[in-house]
Amino acid sequence: MSELKGLCVITVTPFHEDGSLDEESLRKLTDFYIDCGVHGMTILGIMGEAHKLSEVERMQVIDIVLHQTKARVPVVVGCSAPGSNLAAEWALKAEHAGAAAVMIAPPVNLRNEDMLIRYFAMIADHISIPIVLQDEPVTTGVRLSPAFIARLVEKVPLIQYVKLEEAPTTIKISSILELTDLRIFGGLGGMYLYEELDRGAVGIMTGFAYPEILVKTYDLFTAGNQDEARAYFYRFLPLIRFEAQLGIGGVTIRKETFKLRHTIASSHVRFPGTPVDKRTMQELQDMIAFLGLS
Amino acid sequence: MSELKGLCVITVTPFHEDGSLDEESLRKLTDFYIDCGVHGMTILGIMGEAHKLSEVERMQVIDIVLHQTKARVPVVVGCSAPGSNLAAEWALKAEHAGAAAVMIAPPVNLRNEDMLIRYFAMIADHISIPIVLQDEPVTTGVRLSPAFIARLVEKVPLIQYVKLEEAPTTIKISSILELTDLRIFGGLGGMYLYEELDRGAVGIMTGFAYPEILVKTYDLFTAGNQDEARAYFYRFLPLIRFEAQLGIGGVTIRKETFKLRHTIASSHVRFPGTPVDKRTMQELQDMIAFLGLS
Amino acid sequence: MSELKGLCVITVTPFHEDGSLDEESLRKLTDFYIDCGVHGMTILGIMGEAHKLSEVERMQVIDIVLHQTKARVPVVVGCSAPGSNLAAEWALKAEHAGAAAVMIAPPVNLRNEDMLIRYFAMIADHISIPIVLQDEPVTTGVRLSPAFIARLVEKVPLIQYVKLEEAPTTIKISSILELTDLRIFGGLGGMYLYEELDRGAVGIMTGFAYPEILVKTYDLFTAGNQDEARAYFYRFLPLIRFEAQLGIGGVTIRKETFKLRHTIASSHVRFPGTPVDKRTMQELQDMIAFLGLS
Amino acid sequence: MSELKGLCVITVTPFHEDGSLDEESLRKLTDFYIDCGVHGMTILGIMGEAHKLSEVERMQVIDIVLHQTKARVPVVVGCSAPGSNLAAEWALKAEHAGAAAVMIAPPVNLRNEDMLIRYFAMIADHISIPIVLQDEPVTTGVRLSPAFIARLVEKVPLIQYVKLEEAPTTIKISSILELTDLRIFGGLGGMYLYEELDRGAVGIMTGFAYPEILVKTYDLFTAGNQDEARAYFYRFLPLIRFEAQLGIGGVTIRKETFKLRHTIASSHVRFPGTPVDKRTMQELQDMIAFLGLS
Repeated sequence: MSELKGLCVITVTPFHEDGSLDEESLRKLTDFYIDCGVHGMTILGIMGEAHKLSEVERMQVIDIVLHQTKARVPVVVGCSAPGSNLAAEWALKAEHAGAAAVMIAPPVNLRNEDMLIRYFAMIADHISIPIVLQDEPVTTGVRLSPAFIARLVEKVPLIQYVKLEEAPTTIKISSILELTDLRIFGGLGGMYLYEELDRGAVGIMTGFAYPEILVKTYDLFTAGNQDEARAYFYRFLPLIRFEAQLGIGGVTIRKETFKLRHTIASSHVRFPGTPVDKRTMQELQDMIAFLGLS
Repeated sequence: MSELKGLCVITVTPFHEDGSLDEESLRKLTDFYIDCGVHGMTILGIMGEAHKLSEVERMQVIDIVLHQTKARVPVVVGCSAPGSNLAAEWALKAEHAGAAAVMIAPPVNLRNEDMLIRYFAMIADHISIPIVLQDEPVTTGVRLSPAFIARLVEKVPLIQYVKLEEAPTTIKISSILELTDLRIFGGLGGMYLYEELDRGAVGIMTGFAYPEILVKTYDLFTAGNQDEARAYFYRFLPLIRFEAQLGIGGVTIRKETFKLRHTIASSHVRFPGTPVDKRTMQELQDMIAFLGLS
Repeated sequence: MSELKGLCVITVTPFHEDGSLDEESLRKLTDFYIDCGVHGMTILGIMGEAHKLSEVERMQVIDIVLHQTKARVPVVVGCSAPGSNLAAEWALKAEHAGAAAVMIAPPVNLRNEDMLIRYFAMIADHISIPIVLQDEPVTTGVRLSPAFIARLVEKVPLIQYVKLEEAPTTIKISSILELTDLRIFGGLGGMYLYEELDRGAVGIMTGFAYPEILVKTYDLFTAGNQDEARAYFYRFLPLIRFEAQLGIGGVTIRKETFKLRHTIASSHVRFPGTPVDKRTMQELQDMIAFLGLS
Repeated sequence: MSELKGLCVITVTPFHEDGSLDEESLRKLTDFYIDCGVHGMTILGIMGEAHKLSEVERMQVIDIVLHQTKARVPVVVGCSAPGSNLAAEWALKAEHAGAAAVMIAPPVNLRNEDMLIRYFAMIADHISIPIVLQDEPVTTGVRLSPAFIARLVEKVPLIQYVKLEEAPTTIKISSILELTDLRIFGGLGGMYLYEELDRGAVGIMTGFAYPEILVKTYDLFTAGNQDEARAYFYRFLPLIRFEAQLGIGGVTIRKETFKLRHTIASSHVRFPGTPVDKRTMQELQDMIAFLGLS
């Protein structure tokens, strides 16, 4: 499987109105992402409501997406868990199903650095596909300093990527690249894609519901047309920022957008999800029109 | 099933040295707790490493314990989850397996009160056994004021118990009893059992590894021998306090104690668990000897 | 004093290279802000490093700014403190010095709603100028729900404004306006100024170092040229977003910008302040050039 | 000035009923502590409501206590502040007034280790008396690992003491003593005094309102009568634990106790302070009677 890079879009998990998994929409969504030109897919992240799925449903999502992609793009599977047993078990299943990599965050509030190294080492012992280290301090309560990341990667060489979510990602990209040769993905809803690429990120992992905009920005940038990439990116920044304001709770607005785009059948989010008021939905549609996207 | 009261001991989940579920030790431990006189058992709490179990293992623990108790004591099953779907699914399974009640904490960082009410209402819709509201602000990041608890219980009458973990539990017991007729269980490792009972708690849920001490304190107290209960309780306070210093990470020291007491075969804790140094183990044994418990 | 509205810019506090207060730069900065057209000034906020000033220095800043404005714009004085005594004492001094209002956040981690009401009531007893309620959950650990804000304002009518910092501010503006007639200021570094105004905010309080851009956006908007306001605002969004990425630690980059603009003599920030690397400074200058602002 | 050791009691700051500083009670309290046999006093800590005092009041407290002790015991002055300028200024004033040492915690949420070292180094540059490093993670949000403490002390040799507040203190004492020759004070309200001494602590800093009990435990222990120290300590553990349940908010109950002991005139706590209900006060008196202390 080729190296991860570009937009490895963080996917939503479509449900029927009654809350059950909507397999057909998931297949359609997978094709939609690929048609948008995404370079990879990242499933079972927070945006994918992975923590609200049963273990059976987790496997269903993995199987459906991997079957549907038909190896057109690499698939990263989120396997963050409260303990190493569970994370290793899930990671092994992902590998067997054909995942290109697994993405794993530190367990919540595990701040002891030696224990963090041991945690990732225990998981790495069970698998042979690369690990994307998920740096998600707001959710985990664990801050990963560049110096520690360098130490961790030395001990657990299967960690070949890091996905940053701690602002400002730009400075952190430079700090990590000074110490390691990790391949870095940006985040923050895509808000700093241009600047992240300019700092040396190999791509971005985010759930922005107009993935084609991030794809084109990336493609222009890597083709050497940096000013064009920048102007193009800034043109759509108002919308990227609009989605980003809802933070991790942004799953609702993203599902609404995919529904508007006729990609998924229902915008149902499993409870509790951050609610979005009618006015926000109206603002979203106005914004899409204002930017000429409708 | 009779009403919950007294010591509903929060149980550990025994593993083999290789980390797999030790079913035989779990059966032995169940009998041990009952022989100690516990009035109920609370399984699949944080102390039971529930968050580190797969869903299959969760069901195994439920089935083994419920089969082993043979209805000698009521069993409360922890069903806290990140979403209402999962919590409801687990709660329903617990009810079908014969649980007397389920214990459920708010989802992490869900601080919107209306959403909290809806969360518990959605779960209550699926089951008919009582809910123990788990007040665990350190773990959940959610503080439940007595006024809100009163509002919640009015809307979700299946919540018939609350298990407190926010210090000082004593003041909170009085505040809740002024507003509701909930039956309240104390917590905090048993550190304030006497004072909690004196404030009107119907019992305690905690994992202290000498449950017979809490049982006897409770039995003396409810038999009207309050001064005797108090003196007896204070006599063993040094040990209760000693275990409590390790907080929620105290699962390790409790498993070590159960191993010392020949109740479980291995003190293995799934990673990551708070480590306990050799000196602490020595202190534990000295303490047990000093108090005449060995 | 007239009603607060528009851009009440949150000011930095200039220091000499040795860390002492730079009175001349503070006077120059005050004139600069007014020349930019700001509608008010908010001094001694977090951006103004108020928490790193001695009480003597606090008074110096108040006196210099109030003397220099010569009543050309209203001045809001930040008076957040760990206790009501201190906050009331500072607020009274601000009123005596001529402040138009004081801005006060809840004490850190004071989550009991009745105590919060009492806190603000105790301060209000000492002063007669309006209070701007500062909603700053990241710094204070206290979330203020719209329902609670309505209750608070009813009990403490001197609270006539609220300055929002909890994302998404847009939804919260609507929720508060449904319940109260508070005048609301947006925040979040100016990232959502257009949308906040569109929801009914009367202005914004933020420290963005090109205040004239926010002023013009506001003026266009209130003159009824909404589409023009929007297009103008979105044009400079890349820079607003760039500053905002550094969050509250953004004082450093803002001081650097003011220094680039020849407004203050030194960009010194009292330790500890979030450091900004050379590359970020270069990015800032590139951005300014890219947007035609240099 | 001799080395710090034993009970360096953390003092309350007495107020009149109207909230103003009660100088006479402060003098009386100082004598009371010394009559109880304390080995030192720690003023202007959180228990002393230092954060609610104006800078003028801070100096009053320092002057009164240092004048009143007449060098009978060493005085440690709390100088924690949000920035190095303020901390250094306060520390220098404390040194000039005759303090034996200053106690300083990391600024809230300053987690970058290099910045922490620089922070303490900047303060140390201004003073020549020892620094007590205050390890207070609950209040500061900063966890100090033993490895980091060792690195910090090597760079800032003026740090000669550490006062621990992170549970379990026992294990942390051993870990720090393996890496440094720091002199360590325990904390946690005195709950683990015996065990802390047994691990090698040189004393304890806490505000327990029966300081003579901690003094006697320490004196017995250091005289080699360890079993006697232990039995004596355990006898009063119910009361130590009772006060500790109120945590840092325990200033109220401690002031009530000092009032019961006729040491201070009023139990007034500056708002907001954690309230204590009447029943708790009754429990306190019952406890004192039950233990034969009244």
